[in-house]
Amino acid sequence: MNEQSLIYLDNAATSFPKPDSVYTAMDDYNRNIGAAVGRGAYRKSIELQTSIDQCRKLAARLLGAARPEEVAFTFNGTDSLNTIIHGVLKPGDHVITSDVEHNSVLRPLQTLKDRWGLETTIIPADQAGLVEPMAFREAIRKNTRLIMLNHASNVTGTIQPVNEVGEIAGQAGVLFLVDAAQTAGHLPLDVSQMPVDFLACPGHKGLLGPLGTGLVYLRAELADQVESFRQGGTGTRSEEETQPDSIPEKFESGNHNAPGLIGLRASLEYVLEQGISALRQHEQQLTAQLLEGLQQLPGFLMTGPRAAEERVGVVSLISESAEPQVLASILDENFGIQIRAGLHCAPRIHACIGSKEAGGTLRFSPGPFTTVEQINTTVAAMQEMALSFSG
Amino acid sequence: MNEQSLIYLDNAATSFPKPDSVYTAMDDYNRNIGAAVGRGAYRKSIELQTSIDQCRKLAARLLGAARPEEVAFTFNGTDSLNTIIHGVLKPGDHVITSDVEHNSVLRPLQTLKDRWGLETTIIPADQAGLVEPMAFREAIRKNTRLIMLNHASNVTGTIQPVNEVGEIAGQAGVLFLVDAAQTAGHLPLDVSQMPVDFLACPGHKGLLGPLGTGLVYLRAELADQVESFRQGGTGTRSEEETQPDSIPEKFESGNHNAPGLIGLRASLEYVLEQGISALRQHEQQLTAQLLEGLQQLPGFLMTGPRAAEERVGVVSLISESAEPQVLASILDENFGIQIRAGLHCAPRIHACIGSKEAGGTLRFSPGPFTTVEQINTTVAAMQEMALSFSG
Repeated sequence: MNEQSLIYLDNAATSFPKPDSVYTAMDDYNRNIGAAVGRGAYRKSIELQTSIDQCRKLAARLLGAARPEEVAFTFNGTDSLNTIIHGVLKPGDHVITSDVEHNSVLRPLQTLKDRWGLETTIIPADQAGLVEPMAFREAIRKNTRLIMLNHASNVTGTIQPVNEVGEIAGQAGVLFLVDAAQTAGHLPLDVSQMPVDFLACPGHKGLLGPLGTGLVYLRAELADQVESFRQGGTGTRSEEETQPDSIPEKFESGNHNAPGLIGLRASLEYVLEQGISALRQHEQQLTAQLLEGLQQLPGFLMTGPRAAEERVGVVSLISESAEPQVLASILDENFGIQIRAGLHCAPRIHACIGSKEAGGTLRFSPGPFTTVEQINTTVAAMQEMALSFSG
Repeated sequence: MNEQSLIYLDNAATSFPKPDSVYTAMDDYNRNIGAAVGRGAYRKSIELQTSIDQCRKLAARLLGAARPEEVAFTFNGTDSLNTIIHGVLKPGDHVITSDVEHNSVLRPLQTLKDRWGLETTIIPADQAGLVEPMAFREAIRKNTRLIMLNHASNVTGTIQPVNEVGEIAGQAGVLFLVDAAQTAGHLPLDVSQMPVDFLACPGHKGLLGPLGTGLVYLRAELADQVESFRQGGTGTRSEEETQPDSIPEKFESGNHNAPGLIGLRASLEYVLEQGISALRQHEQQLTAQLLEGLQQLPGFLMTGPRAAEERVGVVSLISESAEPQVLASILDENFGIQIRAGLHCAPRIHACIGSKEAGGTLRFSPGPFTTVEQINTTVAAMQEMALSFSG
């Protein structure tokens, strides 16, 4: 199996490849700039600050944030979610979330439950991995402080009714956080038009930037309601031992991942240039192809919504016989196809979609550089494997 | 001023250049691997996991950690410090730290003071930026939980008596955290022989790795006393909504900065290959040269210890006339010399060393790739500048 013929279908974990401009920008930064962000009086450092500011503006434009300062840089999607969860919740609070959430939401909540008794309600999902907005309304209590919902499942790809849930939250005066890990760069997002208070996403999935980057959107007027998660040097007001109140500095302590943000800047340029609707169209085409090719496979069950337009580019199968990890290894070793197998760090959804006993799913997640031919090859490989298992 | 002739003396902020192997390793990862760490069944993902394990082993070897799992990866030095500070301290606790600390220590402490009344004692430093170990002993109270000390000042380079302070902490049953931001990769460190419970450092300063990386050493038997700072997916025990208790996973949630750690692995190999004593010898030579060349400069006052062996490669001057930021700009624009000016995110030490009124210091910090000739050029430039200001 030579390198070039490998098929990478693990874009829901991290996108690969990235646009070539990402690699070039990072290598150029590494070799020719090298400075830390915003703490120097010399030109290279100031030039770098300008690039980071530009990255922030591009991110704000892509998310629809009214002001660039509403976007803070973190180090991954988990870091973004922790920034809001630990920043907002206080003893006495109640939180509503759902079965479709990732451990990056479930584990911080469980931790606060164990530490000081956070009250939580977890809304069930149906067999397609979909939640019912009215269930959120019914779960709201007097002390409900925050509703958190995954915009699209990293297991089934199911797109959730975030606007409906956000409306319900807003009407009740409850804060609303969207986990956009699987939708930023995949679906049109416009936080200025959405009933969303906070949005968290990594920089390295649909935004096509490098690992080690994350974004958190915080509606400016709510910044005072969010305590800082991490404190330290911000390159501003260095004479003060108190963490600055201004955004984004309040949420950005310590050195930025400069090569990462330089790469993210290049990838955001790429995404904006291509346009979300073209990227989405390509993703839907490949998703439809996977759904079509894999849904009748003997020995496998398709999960999630049947229609490509109801999901992002994530397609999960349940294997009725072999362990998913074993199948993934065979796909890699015999066919050069890289997919992910197991629970995908989202433990609860498997009980809803029926993949718990099977040890999770086989997940196929194409990206912007995946081709129709690669999906054809993948479907053929799965058919061959299904035959050999059933035969 | 062409690119090649630029002189970078801001290694205390982030080291530059890095070893060429760092750039090559990152670019190779970016273009040819691209996977996320430890969450895939395919070979590239497993190969990457092996590289990250190797990075951890190298870091453990360099720090003298008994077990690789005692080293957790974070995203910068501030993130490492916050991991321990927020993980250890609880209402009712008292903390002792010093005037020489960075805002990455002072601001988290101030935040906890404001949030729930953390008690703090701040030990003064003398005019050379040195603390007196006995002052720590005298400050210990019944509820003292943690002593935190900067191993070497990022303003004056002053090496602190961490072993003496650590002994005092240990005798009193108080936990001891060393901020090794300016010493990891600069001074021999062996946590197995030092009275140190926790050590925090960035990966991108003396360890010569990329920005976006950090390390925290936690003595294994103390891991239970440190709550997790950030919770989420760890690629392990995905079926559990409770953050794992095992190290290092407990302190490593969300995706690693894979290109960063791949770069760090290469830089750790470089540092171990060169050897700390050779790196230290080079640093001391350049530091002595800076001390010799800059201490009699008209209009400037030298800060910190007089002897190179009492400091790391950080030399700060107080300007008696012009603003430090202005001088740094002139040095960059007229001489191509990149230094840092101001408070360096360490507000308290300036009152000790007499640089508060002056708006901080002009800081020169050479690195392993700085040459004797570059320091000569820098001293000559400073002499020229001093003449033009006094003349």
